[in-house]
Amino acid sequence: MALRAALRHKCGLSAVLTQLAVGTSHGRVSMPLLLSQQRNRSTASRVSVHFDQSTGVAVMYMQSPPVNSLSLDFLTEFCISVEKLEMDKGCRGLIITSNQPKVFSAGLDIMEMYGKTPERCGEFWKAVQEMWLKLYGSNMVIISAINGSSPAGGCLMALTSDYRIMADNPRYNIGLNETQLGIVAPFWFKDTMVNTVGHRSAELSLELGLLYSPSEALKIGLVDQLVPEDQVLTTALQIMTKWLAIPDHARQITKSTMRKPTIDKLMSSREADVQNFVSFITRDSIQKSLRMYLEMLKKRKA
Amino acid sequence: MALRAALRHKCGLSAVLTQLAVGTSHGRVSMPLLLSQQRNRSTASRVSVHFDQSTGVAVMYMQSPPVNSLSLDFLTEFCISVEKLEMDKGCRGLIITSNQPKVFSAGLDIMEMYGKTPERCGEFWKAVQEMWLKLYGSNMVIISAINGSSPAGGCLMALTSDYRIMADNPRYNIGLNETQLGIVAPFWFKDTMVNTVGHRSAELSLELGLLYSPSEALKIGLVDQLVPEDQVLTTALQIMTKWLAIPDHARQITKSTMRKPTIDKLMSSREADVQNFVSFITRDSIQKSLRMYLEMLKKRKA
Amino acid sequence: MALRAALRHKCGLSAVLTQLAVGTSHGRVSMPLLLSQQRNRSTASRVSVHFDQSTGVAVMYMQSPPVNSLSLDFLTEFCISVEKLEMDKGCRGLIITSNQPKVFSAGLDIMEMYGKTPERCGEFWKAVQEMWLKLYGSNMVIISAINGSSPAGGCLMALTSDYRIMADNPRYNIGLNETQLGIVAPFWFKDTMVNTVGHRSAELSLELGLLYSPSEALKIGLVDQLVPEDQVLTTALQIMTKWLAIPDHARQITKSTMRKPTIDKLMSSREADVQNFVSFITRDSIQKSLRMYLEMLKKRKA
Repeated sequence: MALRAALRHKCGLSAVLTQLAVGTSHGRVSMPLLLSQQRNRSTASRVSVHFDQSTGVAVMYMQSPPVNSLSLDFLTEFCISVEKLEMDKGCRGLIITSNQPKVFSAGLDIMEMYGKTPERCGEFWKAVQEMWLKLYGSNMVIISAINGSSPAGGCLMALTSDYRIMADNPRYNIGLNETQLGIVAPFWFKDTMVNTVGHRSAELSLELGLLYSPSEALKIGLVDQLVPEDQVLTTALQIMTKWLAIPDHARQITKSTMRKPTIDKLMSSREADVQNFVSFITRDSIQKSLRMYLEMLKKRKA
Repeated sequence: MALRAALRHKCGLSAVLTQLAVGTSHGRVSMPLLLSQQRNRSTASRVSVHFDQSTGVAVMYMQSPPVNSLSLDFLTEFCISVEKLEMDKGCRGLIITSNQPKVFSAGLDIMEMYGKTPERCGEFWKAVQEMWLKLYGSNMVIISAINGSSPAGGCLMALTSDYRIMADNPRYNIGLNETQLGIVAPFWFKDTMVNTVGHRSAELSLELGLLYSPSEALKIGLVDQLVPEDQVLTTALQIMTKWLAIPDHARQITKSTMRKPTIDKLMSSREADVQNFVSFITRDSIQKSLRMYLEMLKKRKA
Repeated sequence: MALRAALRHKCGLSAVLTQLAVGTSHGRVSMPLLLSQQRNRSTASRVSVHFDQSTGVAVMYMQSPPVNSLSLDFLTEFCISVEKLEMDKGCRGLIITSNQPKVFSAGLDIMEMYGKTPERCGEFWKAVQEMWLKLYGSNMVIISAINGSSPAGGCLMALTSDYRIMADNPRYNIGLNETQLGIVAPFWFKDTMVNTVGHRSAELSLELGLLYSPSEALKIGLVDQLVPEDQVLTTALQIMTKWLAIPDHARQITKSTMRKPTIDKLMSSREADVQNFVSFITRDSIQKSLRMYLEMLKKRKA
């Protein structure tokens, strides 16, 4: 069923292209100041964190124009910001959202994978691993306020959260659509997907590189809740208070019990996973696919 | 979705308190004699077994006032009763139900965890493990006739069954709500939950300590069927005849194929799991939480 | 819910009997020539393959009267045909369907298990394993066009596909109903079922040997789509074009990532699994069950 709907919908390559991560459109938009009580505010160039010490909740805005693509620079800043909050005992909850219009995050930056040295590719991949490890294993409650499309690596980021709220806008979509581009989601992307939607939905989803509309995503459990677009962040803040009513210690141990086996799998083969990525992405055939894809993007832009 | 519903509903601590296991209310009610053909009846103080040799079906009534809390004494009697039926070749099916009003079982008896010596705590935990091992690995068909609320350990007991029928009374609830009390469901509680409702529902459920209304529980697969309260036991008997139409030998091997990996995990780390429980529950911080919880209960009672 | 519906429906032994695999009825029907562009056609006695080189899609018709039971001869031909297509670089997709009326495949041929030498039983079981390994690990996109009932081994065959389309005819059913016959689905049948419908549905399904109507099967995810009976094959061809739009290489690696752990489990214990089957099936008690079952079939026939 999900497949039929998704096939009807927008999983074609042309749809994928409209969200992807190569910095082609839109200027930066001004950042809404939704939190009245914010006391602490650190603004890095690609990530802006609003931490309200009175509630223990931080909101992290991704603001890397045009589509919050996960470049090495972005990931580095992002991980440092998460690490800081993780170390701050006063911070119990983190909401991740986007400051860019129409997109949560467009996923891995293709420019980091095209025409780069193996060393650089390896460094990039370690940063992707780091993001996943930090988020999926976080002691904080993490809620994704998905206020735009979220393909590939953007979907992965959302999957690491404890709870996912998505804007109920049928023009947005979410999914691990790697195969559509001729690339492959690695095993820990797959594991996170299986843990979220189950084995069969993950299989269909990953083999076909499906992108789901918000209502389809809700149906298979890829997101937990849909709300009107202007209520995504406020709902995230409300839901966060429910999560923070649970004693941290018990919740953290429970979260670890659920996720540790999946995290340990990557931890025990992290270097091999890097080598695997590097040898795959630097293949001539894959580089050729990426070049064709980038040229297609340029034409669309023109 | 389940979260939203559950959050709206009754997963707050005050709701939890109404079911918990510290012997505060209700006298024993008279035991209904529903089985006309019963030939064999052994009544222990906390568990009453009606075994009908003509059908091969035993009904076990939990009758430990006020809320069938799982104390060491209760668990010992319970396990001996199950063991007896397991050894009896004539007994093919077991229905577990409650003789106490409004509650199936309120779960682990907190008094067994508060202010006790490590040795006593260890003994108690072994009895909890024993109950789970006996039920989850039973060769009998086990059906839970859930005629009241069933939080925490009560939910675990229901989860070990082959089939769960619950009274369709919105005042009852069921779930592994340990985190609400600041404690943690151990890995084998978690595994049983994952096997029943899948990884993601289990994650949400356990992190938030959610208690589900019967209709919510049906929706996520935590129970299999809802019926009006006065039909819970009769339905269980009807469903049992369907299960007993399957050749025992084939069904038992199949059940073992499904459950053995989960059972083996506890069997291979049983002693470590006891040590883990004892060192956790005897911590000052946890004992303090339990004391506060017990004082709150006393105030409610007064 | 699924249980209640299935129990109401047709999981009784008499229903099972109507589909089972012992060659009692119907003559061979003429093979419809649905593919206009077919260029290559090899017709073996039990399997007929129509391969359209222009699309890269092969349709394999099972045509072993009366009910496509999986005999050693059938499995051998079937596996050779699949192997040939797998080796043909031009063949990217395979649709499996039936040329026999009312049945997709009735599953393992009971005559291969009754009164045979251990050696012969072992040879037969290796062929069953081979079928599963070839299909579940295939690099081709495989779609089952399930145009009739598909119990036991027939269901297993369908489960190995990437996508399952079933005729929306309530007289057909599908499921792993082994326990109804007093036999047991081995661990890799179980694993494939768990991967498709999840742990709990698989547990219920396998313990009770449930056969599901098409709509029930759709509900638990045992099949992916229902269409009117005369559109099963045409729909399969349409869906296939969607799958073939995904780059083969990426899809194949992704499929392997999803299925390799399950395949490796059998690969690493293949010989033990054969021994296990042989020692089980040659037991006096099991042979007696099979004899009684066969005699019952003869009576029904008379």
